[in-house]
Amino acid sequence: MPRLRVHNLGMSLDGCCAGPDQSVEHPLGVGAEQLHEWMFETKTWHEMAGEEGGTTGLDDEFMRAGIDGIGATVMGRNMFGPVRGSWGDSDWRGWWGDDPPYHHPVFVLTHHAHEPIPMQGGTTFHFVDDGIESALQQAFDAAGGADVRLGGGVSTVQQHLRAGLVDDLHVPVVPILLGGGERLFADPSVLDRYECVEVVSTPGVAHFRFAKSAS
Amino acid sequence: MPRLRVHNLGMSLDGCCAGPDQSVEHPLGVGAEQLHEWMFETKTWHEMAGEEGGTTGLDDEFMRAGIDGIGATVMGRNMFGPVRGSWGDSDWRGWWGDDPPYHHPVFVLTHHAHEPIPMQGGTTFHFVDDGIESALQQAFDAAGGADVRLGGGVSTVQQHLRAGLVDDLHVPVVPILLGGGERLFADPSVLDRYECVEVVSTPGVAHFRFAKSAS
Repeated sequence: MPRLRVHNLGMSLDGCCAGPDQSVEHPLGVGAEQLHEWMFETKTWHEMAGEEGGTTGLDDEFMRAGIDGIGATVMGRNMFGPVRGSWGDSDWRGWWGDDPPYHHPVFVLTHHAHEPIPMQGGTTFHFVDDGIESALQQAFDAAGGADVRLGGGVSTVQQHLRAGLVDDLHVPVVPILLGGGERLFADPSVLDRYECVEVVSTPGVAHFRFAKSAS
Repeated sequence: MPRLRVHNLGMSLDGCCAGPDQSVEHPLGVGAEQLHEWMFETKTWHEMAGEEGGTTGLDDEFMRAGIDGIGATVMGRNMFGPVRGSWGDSDWRGWWGDDPPYHHPVFVLTHHAHEPIPMQGGTTFHFVDDGIESALQQAFDAAGGADVRLGGGVSTVQQHLRAGLVDDLHVPVVPILLGGGERLFADPSVLDRYECVEVVSTPGVAHFRFAKSAS
């Protein structure tokens, strides 16, 4: 069975996956880019950027795992862009430029319908306004037997965890404090159906993986 | 120079070092004993309990590090007992029975003076009502050149971190959620003077160590 997987959902030691004061300049909130610096060091990241070099080992394996076997992505609207409410005459096409790093169909959760946006490199943004189950079904259909990755933001992940829709959750914890923003585990019930199946670390990151409990 | 060290300050993945609803029955709050289960498995813990067996390796090394080279302990009043306000006619002698596991002088921070309480096995509880610097000075004097360990609770540790008095901080993070209680890093300024110097893990615990920044 294809799975819904969350990868590289970086969290600070005070539990935040996004920092305070999110804006167009700071889409992850102030300071939150530090949650992702370990990824930028990896060989997989370098390859995605068309560059030589980068580290191999555990961090790279986690980075790679977020790409391998993924056929579609689901994300919350805020992860697609900063526009709130009605789209109006916005021509926003995502945070990632003309050739986004997905290279497969991406399903954006929204309350406001929008025509699909085809991008370079195989990414097309589809907009789903009839709920997370519908988006997930469309993503699995589009993935053609491959797994689906669930991107952020925090509230989107929480919603899918509460519904028991996530199969694998990977949270790399970075030893910084953000002091505000969005706390992934502010409501502990999000893990009611999950158990920790792995704790491993590199000098800068502790990687936690959760899976659905057998019960 | 003797150092002030915090060891084995277990924290949940939602940032709590104590659970909700602390009471005489649940001195750490409900659920928080799970933060310490990794310690109970270690060879050092077994030795302290006069038992054979227990695990060696990283967890045991951290357990052992909290004992080696320590000549005195400082703790907040709530870690000593549940009595609040005036001592009245309380004959409370600590959470640990007649032979507490300290075996050295322990300095309890309080606003209410109390005669020292000598216990079996070398532990004497002293009560300090003129501030954390005074308690620390008395503890260093009593330690006779050895280091001093700072116990809990959370607010006591926060107070010493803010004052820059802690030299080493060890926080083992356990992949459970407590959903309430005391969050060690609720105020991120407690780490303003500190930097992470180690991240290592065992299958059930990610150990983070912090030291004072060079600046």
